[in-house]
Amino acid sequence: MNYKTENIKKLIVSKPLLLDCKQTIKDFPLAYETFGKLNESRDNAILVFHALTGDQFVSGKNPITKKEGWWITAVGPGKAIDTDKYFVICANVIGGCMGSWGPKEIDKKTNESYGLNFPVITIRDMVKAQETLLDYLGIKKLLCVTGGSMGGMQSLEFCATFPNKTFSAVPIACSTNHSAQNIALNELARQAIMADPAWENGNYLKKNILPKSGLAVARMAGHISYLSEKGLQEKFGRKLQEKADYEFSFDADFQVESYLRHQGYTFVERFDANSYLYITRAMDYFDLSKQFKGGLLEAFGNQKTKFLVISFSSDWLYPTKENKDIVIALNASGADVSFSEIKTDTGHDSFLINEPEFLKTIKGFIDSMYIKFKNEKRI
Amino acid sequence: MNYKTENIKKLIVSKPLLLDCKQTIKDFPLAYETFGKLNESRDNAILVFHALTGDQFVSGKNPITKKEGWWITAVGPGKAIDTDKYFVICANVIGGCMGSWGPKEIDKKTNESYGLNFPVITIRDMVKAQETLLDYLGIKKLLCVTGGSMGGMQSLEFCATFPNKTFSAVPIACSTNHSAQNIALNELARQAIMADPAWENGNYLKKNILPKSGLAVARMAGHISYLSEKGLQEKFGRKLQEKADYEFSFDADFQVESYLRHQGYTFVERFDANSYLYITRAMDYFDLSKQFKGGLLEAFGNQKTKFLVISFSSDWLYPTKENKDIVIALNASGADVSFSEIKTDTGHDSFLINEPEFLKTIKGFIDSMYIKFKNEKRI
Repeated sequence: MNYKTENIKKLIVSKPLLLDCKQTIKDFPLAYETFGKLNESRDNAILVFHALTGDQFVSGKNPITKKEGWWITAVGPGKAIDTDKYFVICANVIGGCMGSWGPKEIDKKTNESYGLNFPVITIRDMVKAQETLLDYLGIKKLLCVTGGSMGGMQSLEFCATFPNKTFSAVPIACSTNHSAQNIALNELARQAIMADPAWENGNYLKKNILPKSGLAVARMAGHISYLSEKGLQEKFGRKLQEKADYEFSFDADFQVESYLRHQGYTFVERFDANSYLYITRAMDYFDLSKQFKGGLLEAFGNQKTKFLVISFSSDWLYPTKENKDIVIALNASGADVSFSEIKTDTGHDSFLINEPEFLKTIKGFIDSMYIKFKNEKRI
Repeated sequence: MNYKTENIKKLIVSKPLLLDCKQTIKDFPLAYETFGKLNESRDNAILVFHALTGDQFVSGKNPITKKEGWWITAVGPGKAIDTDKYFVICANVIGGCMGSWGPKEIDKKTNESYGLNFPVITIRDMVKAQETLLDYLGIKKLLCVTGGSMGGMQSLEFCATFPNKTFSAVPIACSTNHSAQNIALNELARQAIMADPAWENGNYLKKNILPKSGLAVARMAGHISYLSEKGLQEKFGRKLQEKADYEFSFDADFQVESYLRHQGYTFVERFDANSYLYITRAMDYFDLSKQFKGGLLEAFGNQKTKFLVISFSSDWLYPTKENKDIVIALNASGADVSFSEIKTDTGHDSFLINEPEFLKTIKGFIDSMYIKFKNEKRI
């Protein structure tokens, strides 16, 4: 990546944090952003968790990439998650590369980037780090936590680890653990990065080079999995790229080839290859049932949080069945849970695009939760 | 790859062959193998077409890899395609790397491997090259052509291009053209190979190196697509690799990671990276409807060949829907066609494994075709 994160808003977390790998960290940076205003009763705060390649710039303009925030379709003034009404918080996950403590940050012991000296972190580590924002911002209980994909996993983890810190939760397009196919796709991406000689065993920043090709291939693999077969077919089919016929070469003849190459090679400008390794690893390790030895019933035991689980019909990465398994476990734990499968051809990425039924669903849920949350406090 | 193909059985094709890219070739090697005996009436010959990474060693022992032939489950004495009864022929496709004319062969003009000077070939080119074996072996009409995946595409192409040269055809787990997702997956593999600096713009053999990492990553991507989500889950799930818990490292913690790495890095011993580029390109270019400008009705017009189309329920690379589209087109052309979807969790690779219902289906069809073929000749 080609950007500096020094001037990004950060909380330096001074409270020691015991990571799942048994290492304790403290005084580490957590980059975050807020949108809207915290009201006087401090009950309108929503914590949004980002996905694998996301960051804290959930709405508005991303000051680094100069592009719109990654969830501009859902979050902003007058949007489904209305920042005229709600106070939205989003932090860059630890392990990431947008200012939070991650493998590209400087290790004070060596004065060089951590690289592979960075510890392997977990979804729980990410969530524990972000929970420190609540105290800092003066919030006792969130109105809602939400996020799609890895953001959904963090939402589940947050509720399991901090059962009294949020009134409601909307985990979107996720699961309580990765299937073998999910792990295989992430391992493919990791192997692509590690196969690039410019990765230099994780030490590329010290050598002032970047494993661009490997990271681009990893991103291409990701992109294929984020879209549905039907969505790809409708968007690209066999359309040729500004040419009348095949060129009998290895240039991009098909539009879908050109699209993939573009996705791969623009991604490397904004993302760190080691962060890709660490974050995919955290996703693969995530397993709520393993973490709470008694299984999901333990994980969700005594939940007072009200859940809305959302899946997308054409998502083959986190299919509806896996989302329904969350609902079954929450029901079995006696939790308050509703479920919605959005019918769409746009695959896993549906949560990021303008999908009216989806946006209407989260808006309705959060607005009604806000009323209930206020009523509950009144009693 | 680490093997020599000089002593493999080859036909030197002297008849000039006009390739789809407009180049004419002649005196090129076509490596092939036969199993069983051609009978006196010369009506028991079956031409098997191999898939992307296959070769001519369909049964028995592969003299190069020392492993069993790639379709040993289906072809051999007493097997579904019984070599005690039938004469089975299989050739390495041009563009391949098991002795047929391909990018690793020596270009007589330069005395070096072709590399990217090899022309981009098509499925039709492959099939036309293999058709020359019929004359050479003294066969007027085949009993059957068959193959899975790219072998199925070649079967369809053979019937379309040579409508009177086979009595029957069994295309398995294929389609008449690649979907955008198929092309995307192949492009991912090509990008992985071309991202490897050791690929050297296709000139690695001249420089005595091999793009092993890139080819291994390409193969891993392929492998994920050959297996179904459910199949992977049942085989591997989240099982750990000979360890009690996560190691918090990037070693292969999960069995599925170890499996993928093994598949990738053993593959490079037996396959040529440039062949992988050329053959995937041929698959992506394959489009029977485009080739026969009038569409599939033209492609299959006046077919006397009797077809059996087979799909596998859990194949997401060539889903049943795409196989059914072949059946619809054949029906619309008035061709004699039957169809069978085999229920299985083993994904696209099902045609390569011991799947009793599948094997029974092809045995029944081919045995009945043999009787009909003899009867027809008698009339």
